Amino acid sequence: MISRYARPEAAAIWSSQTKYKIWFEIEAHAADAMAELGVIPKLAAETIWEKGRDAVWDSDRIDEIERVTKHDVIAFLTHVSEIVGPEARFLHQGMTSSDVLDTCFAVQLSRATDLLLDGVDLVLAALKRRALEHKFTVCVGRSHGIHAEPITFGLKLAGYYAEFQRAKERLAMAKFEIATCAISGAVGTFANVDPRVEQHVADKMGLAVEPVSTQVIPRDRHAAYFAALGVVASSIERLATEIRHLQRTEVLEAEEPFDPGQKGSSAMPHKRNPILTENLTGLARLVRSAVVPAMENVALWHERDISHSSVERGIGPDSTIHLDFALRRLAGVIERFNIYPDNMAKNLDKLGGLVFSQRVMLALTHKDVSREDAYAAVQGNAMKVWRGEGRFLDFLKADPVVSKALTDAELEDLFDLGYHTKNVDVIFKRVFGEQA
Amino acid sequence: MISRYARPEAAAIWSSQTKYKIWFEIEAHAADAMAELGVIPKLAAETIWEKGRDAVWDSDRIDEIERVTKHDVIAFLTHVSEIVGPEARFLHQGMTSSDVLDTCFAVQLSRATDLLLDGVDLVLAALKRRALEHKFTVCVGRSHGIHAEPITFGLKLAGYYAEFQRAKERLAMAKFEIATCAISGAVGTFANVDPRVEQHVADKMGLAVEPVSTQVIPRDRHAAYFAALGVVASSIERLATEIRHLQRTEVLEAEEPFDPGQKGSSAMPHKRNPILTENLTGLARLVRSAVVPAMENVALWHERDISHSSVERGIGPDSTIHLDFALRRLAGVIERFNIYPDNMAKNLDKLGGLVFSQRVMLALTHKDVSREDAYAAVQGNAMKVWRGEGRFLDFLKADPVVSKALTDAELEDLFDLGYHTKNVDVIFKRVFGEQA
Amino acid sequence: MISRYARPEAAAIWSSQTKYKIWFEIEAHAADAMAELGVIPKLAAETIWEKGRDAVWDSDRIDEIERVTKHDVIAFLTHVSEIVGPEARFLHQGMTSSDVLDTCFAVQLSRATDLLLDGVDLVLAALKRRALEHKFTVCVGRSHGIHAEPITFGLKLAGYYAEFQRAKERLAMAKFEIATCAISGAVGTFANVDPRVEQHVADKMGLAVEPVSTQVIPRDRHAAYFAALGVVASSIERLATEIRHLQRTEVLEAEEPFDPGQKGSSAMPHKRNPILTENLTGLARLVRSAVVPAMENVALWHERDISHSSVERGIGPDSTIHLDFALRRLAGVIERFNIYPDNMAKNLDKLGGLVFSQRVMLALTHKDVSREDAYAAVQGNAMKVWRGEGRFLDFLKADPVVSKALTDAELEDLFDLGYHTKNVDVIFKRVFGEQA
Amino acid sequence: MISRYARPEAAAIWSSQTKYKIWFEIEAHAADAMAELGVIPKLAAETIWEKGRDAVWDSDRIDEIERVTKHDVIAFLTHVSEIVGPEARFLHQGMTSSDVLDTCFAVQLSRATDLLLDGVDLVLAALKRRALEHKFTVCVGRSHGIHAEPITFGLKLAGYYAEFQRAKERLAMAKFEIATCAISGAVGTFANVDPRVEQHVADKMGLAVEPVSTQVIPRDRHAAYFAALGVVASSIERLATEIRHLQRTEVLEAEEPFDPGQKGSSAMPHKRNPILTENLTGLARLVRSAVVPAMENVALWHERDISHSSVERGIGPDSTIHLDFALRRLAGVIERFNIYPDNMAKNLDKLGGLVFSQRVMLALTHKDVSREDAYAAVQGNAMKVWRGEGRFLDFLKADPVVSKALTDAELEDLFDLGYHTKNVDVIFKRVFGEQA
Repeated sequence: MISRYARPEAAAIWSSQTKYKIWFEIEAHAADAMAELGVIPKLAAETIWEKGRDAVWDSDRIDEIERVTKHDVIAFLTHVSEIVGPEARFLHQGMTSSDVLDTCFAVQLSRATDLLLDGVDLVLAALKRRALEHKFTVCVGRSHGIHAEPITFGLKLAGYYAEFQRAKERLAMAKFEIATCAISGAVGTFANVDPRVEQHVADKMGLAVEPVSTQVIPRDRHAAYFAALGVVASSIERLATEIRHLQRTEVLEAEEPFDPGQKGSSAMPHKRNPILTENLTGLARLVRSAVVPAMENVALWHERDISHSSVERGIGPDSTIHLDFALRRLAGVIERFNIYPDNMAKNLDKLGGLVFSQRVMLALTHKDVSREDAYAAVQGNAMKVWRGEGRFLDFLKADPVVSKALTDAELEDLFDLGYHTKNVDVIFKRVFGEQA
Repeated sequence: MISRYARPEAAAIWSSQTKYKIWFEIEAHAADAMAELGVIPKLAAETIWEKGRDAVWDSDRIDEIERVTKHDVIAFLTHVSEIVGPEARFLHQGMTSSDVLDTCFAVQLSRATDLLLDGVDLVLAALKRRALEHKFTVCVGRSHGIHAEPITFGLKLAGYYAEFQRAKERLAMAKFEIATCAISGAVGTFANVDPRVEQHVADKMGLAVEPVSTQVIPRDRHAAYFAALGVVASSIERLATEIRHLQRTEVLEAEEPFDPGQKGSSAMPHKRNPILTENLTGLARLVRSAVVPAMENVALWHERDISHSSVERGIGPDSTIHLDFALRRLAGVIERFNIYPDNMAKNLDKLGGLVFSQRVMLALTHKDVSREDAYAAVQGNAMKVWRGEGRFLDFLKADPVVSKALTDAELEDLFDLGYHTKNVDVIFKRVFGEQA
Repeated sequence: MISRYARPEAAAIWSSQTKYKIWFEIEAHAADAMAELGVIPKLAAETIWEKGRDAVWDSDRIDEIERVTKHDVIAFLTHVSEIVGPEARFLHQGMTSSDVLDTCFAVQLSRATDLLLDGVDLVLAALKRRALEHKFTVCVGRSHGIHAEPITFGLKLAGYYAEFQRAKERLAMAKFEIATCAISGAVGTFANVDPRVEQHVADKMGLAVEPVSTQVIPRDRHAAYFAALGVVASSIERLATEIRHLQRTEVLEAEEPFDPGQKGSSAMPHKRNPILTENLTGLARLVRSAVVPAMENVALWHERDISHSSVERGIGPDSTIHLDFALRRLAGVIERFNIYPDNMAKNLDKLGGLVFSQRVMLALTHKDVSREDAYAAVQGNAMKVWRGEGRFLDFLKADPVVSKALTDAELEDLFDLGYHTKNVDVIFKRVFGEQA
Repeated sequence: MISRYARPEAAAIWSSQTKYKIWFEIEAHAADAMAELGVIPKLAAETIWEKGRDAVWDSDRIDEIERVTKHDVIAFLTHVSEIVGPEARFLHQGMTSSDVLDTCFAVQLSRATDLLLDGVDLVLAALKRRALEHKFTVCVGRSHGIHAEPITFGLKLAGYYAEFQRAKERLAMAKFEIATCAISGAVGTFANVDPRVEQHVADKMGLAVEPVSTQVIPRDRHAAYFAALGVVASSIERLATEIRHLQRTEVLEAEEPFDPGQKGSSAMPHKRNPILTENLTGLARLVRSAVVPAMENVALWHERDISHSSVERGIGPDSTIHLDFALRRLAGVIERFNIYPDNMAKNLDKLGGLVFSQRVMLALTHKDVSREDAYAAVQGNAMKVWRGEGRFLDFLKADPVVSKALTDAELEDLFDLGYHTKNVDVIFKRVFGEQA
């Protein structure tokens, strides 16, 4: 975890203290259920809660014990007995450390996903506001980086809005995938622990029951989870790349906020760089890097091995914390980035009217020119414009093939931006509903 | 695509002929809608269907044209006009090649996913049958590759069944992700094509309408799709690895079918190797290898670039065809693999009764021995068994700490397999419902 | 393997016929060595060569046999005996199929790498020619996509030249990694085959001897190999991305060749898109996708398992064929792409002289202005230029802080392109040597 | 970075304090060179060293400044001026922050690689010692997890030794790839900094000069670096997987050290699990996860963008620290793991002599039995052994085809372990030289 890309709220989920608190809760809720079933004394369960509920667990002490036992959960339980007293011996009855670890991981990932969902909501809100603001701000649409035809800047943002709505659904589904509880004991047979204990802990921790856990919660769930995060990160990369492109010196249709006191370069005082979105591009790569190891974690040996553990100690906090940071940073950029309609207009005209080439071609085909001939005529005139020899409309008017089919007035009518924005409303309604 | 790992049904989806047929259908359905809207003559649309419906498209001829135009869809349309005649000029009006390519890709991926869903159903059916067959076949459960406690072989398979049910849901969701249609014209503005054309084509091709396509269908959908395939492949790897482990010479609790005439090794005539599941392990790696490039495809520049195209020409067929093959191969293995209950019983006894160690420890704690002391006593006796000095029960009876708390008869009662299988029914009901 | 991205020379290396020819050669050379050692009759070895040297192996027949044996090398040997006659029984004595398969794979990868090295040479030659041609063609250098300071276009290309020299070294090293021969028999002990046989086959096939093969050639070699290809592909991506950027409509400092008859878009006749370099970007992703599975292939079980096989049937041909294609395509683009010095000059001036900001700042610090004050003064004037209020030099002259330290003439002298190109020669000598 | 998998020596390389110290040295060495060239006063360079050489840099203060400037190197330089005084204005003349950052990263990666090389040396030493110790300890060789033929345990370890020798060469090459220095100023033109400054700093920091840096050191170098680490990690995974297999309950030919006080499971006191090598398996996945993002970092835009930065803040420390930890842990395991020759002997006999099947087949072919018939005869008898019906030698003696060709005595001679170990010496000499 890179601390400069971590919000405290997100990092806190993965602190030792949070982890031990969740471990305690799982064990104590399990004790309640066991007491209810008569497996352990009710008084024991009560004492455990009483003494442990607000305890501050001593990480150093736990680490010290672990250096001997080489087992983290046993070390924790030993420390709990130091604080809770002899009743602690009723904890963990029939349970195995995976019951605690995996259920805790589910709780942590669930909480982390709630933050991610909040982050996506911020991105969505910002996208919507700016999309509506620029619903009819005309700019050029580009394919292959080359001017294609006019669109509106709002339309561009609406597309991203739709993509982040999908991101939201993917995160919700990802949370659903991993929010399960396993208290099934060694190799998952419930030999020494009643299935009703699992149900109780699941209810208390806000999780579903894992139908079959083989001591561990199956890792296909986690693979699906981190894959979903990777897809969301890739969507962030797309939007970040868009802004980086728009801020290029020659384009400059949009620009990240540049604050007073900020310096763009140690060497060149004139620089204003899209560093936030470049950073998001890098963070996307980092979040994506968890996907493959999470998939490699699936094929654990038999009922479980522990090779997944070190991987998850890394990717669990790293991916969620960095994605949380990235979503917030992205929301901030979208909320505040400068949009330059004048430059959009200037750029739109840069190709001397070529962005209307399709409409001219189609108009020709409606005048009984074959598609091939229409294409050739339009392409021929377009190439003159590419060579910088003049403007498109002038060439068309002077072209015998074209002018035979279309009058000057008809040609001029084809160079009409309104033609290209007439369905913006239809698309906005698809994305934002009737409110748009 | 590796032809030895391709079923003809799956490969056919990706043939040139299938592709051209789908392209034609998209164009012809669009023509119908345009005719209905009065954009092109009704007669043209009819003629197009009449002449093109059963046409066999000439790939060589199309390739020949493409060598000049360097554009595949234009080459196809030119060829269509050679077959359909002059009415072909009414095709593709206001559309762009992405409309055709992306919608076709959605159709192909949808059909491929239907095969994958069939494959998963076969795996599920085989798993269920074998799970019920061996519901109470006791074997050892292993964690870390080390004997842990008894389970049943049916329980093992039930866990995989649950995992492949999730695989099925993931594939269904993956299909939902990519089954969209875009006929929105250049840069997605519907400037030259009516949105109702898109709706019509979507209906006819069995797809949903893409809310905002920026000329292309957004690639976050495909990233999610290939990620889902990667997760399913990882589940295959887990089951394949399980069988490879079980077939190890020292374990031999299960074995892949070995057919008459089959040879395990060119050098060693005695060999019987788990080559099918080893092959599945490798195929899983291949299918997974599509996940990252699919994610790298998301951040296309502006309204689209074409960098995704070569990637998808690879991973589209390869991932779906190989996963289809893998699922069928896996179903065949599960259906037919040999299960050796006698060896399971022999292995289970291998540790001289150590697999009951937890129950002994818990019994001690119920006789007022502290958890730490109980653990130490049991561990101490277990280590003697590890050293090959005798059987666990004998050591326990002879141990003063243990025998003080538990009589010989009580100890003997603890070595009971039924204790470990008592909740198998509960778990089976979770997985298979009441029928189990 | 995607056939549209495959050159016949590269694809031929991976044909069945080539494979069977190499298999035969390995077996026949081994037979020679065994005959020399007196293990088999000399006449047998001679007959084998005589009848097999120019044989055309019947793939269909081999496949037919494999359907029974489920073992490809046994199927091949059976077919060889059909052609060579009874002497074929002296083939493969003490060998195992991996001896044949792995050594053949080494030969195929070696040959494929030779093509890759040729491809890199073409790229290098093209880069060098264009770099020298534009050694002093001034253009703007960009960091973060934002204008920074002047460079020359030749310098840009020289950097890529240096990178592809490294690519060449990496490929040479990659070939060295995988060009080893193993003829060590079952589990690699040479129990049934003399180590001198291995040495002979290695010499004949142009390979080194693998010091320890555990029946298979260790797969860390192949992991290193495919990783090297992934790095080379990433370098291709960088150069392709550069050209895509330079061709953007607003930049247009360079442009891919656009041939007569070529069509950029089915819808928009004016389009000229950088489709070759976009394609290279996608191919880079494909080639890179082999890296992780090749690494996952390393941890084979014990002396070998066969999970790597299906992976290598895919990535072996795919990665080498597509990378070969990509290198040739790249060389063609570099050889022929249009470079527009006029647009470079125009763009360079776009920021009104801001590209000289550092030099002004440094000049101020040499006149006893502190670095912080100099930065602030230059940045302040630069921001006015960003806001489109005028040209940089004019603002500087009018600034009291600046003008107190530097006269107008001194300031004007700072706006000198020659200052920025004075070390181009030094760098060219580093890259191209004295000839540059 | 996961602190439980970090040695202090490795983590220290990546501390803020180390980073600032290196930054200072780069700047101060550059100042020396500039003073020598007369660009800045000699006294300034001397004062800078005097006041800064032993300074403790205040991270909090630097962070505080960065919150305003949003630029880490400027923040550092501002802090330096607070400590060094006005002479600090002569620092960083004509340099850009990438000169400092990239050169520092090269120094850090070089130092980290030195630790990795030390770690590999420890692994090699342990492997060699144990290999020589068990040079002739016979055990079964396995392919596909199935018994194949006898090998020796020393041979197994010798193979790993050869692999880690390759790992060492790869790390040495990886260090060579990234150990370069760039002090070339904005966009790499040396406009404001003399190339001799770069040479001086390179010499002082133990680096080579980067021939062409485009402001940044080209990232193909880093991609190659992290790929090399990924390959080494994969070799670790292979050896770790071997030990995990050998420790399986049914195999138990080797076992990780299990220390007094250690507990294998919170639930099952009898457990002794291969947790160290399972952990290494997971760490290998983590280290490998850096490979793809490092490759995605290559295609920076134009002369540089900063998307690589966040990625490298993660993978730089994480990969090197975790790989360092893994190598040390692995060396410890190899040094101390238990090897059980008795179990090896027991397992070797498990298949009732089938491991000699090849030799019998070959002997038959030397008695004029065709390869196909010999194979069939041997396979037929082997299958009886598989079915548990008796021992291989007995069946062979009773087989009419076999006994016609080979006498009982001849057959018995074929069951000879010495036959399989006769070339161990040859292989050891290849690996360890004459000393073996």
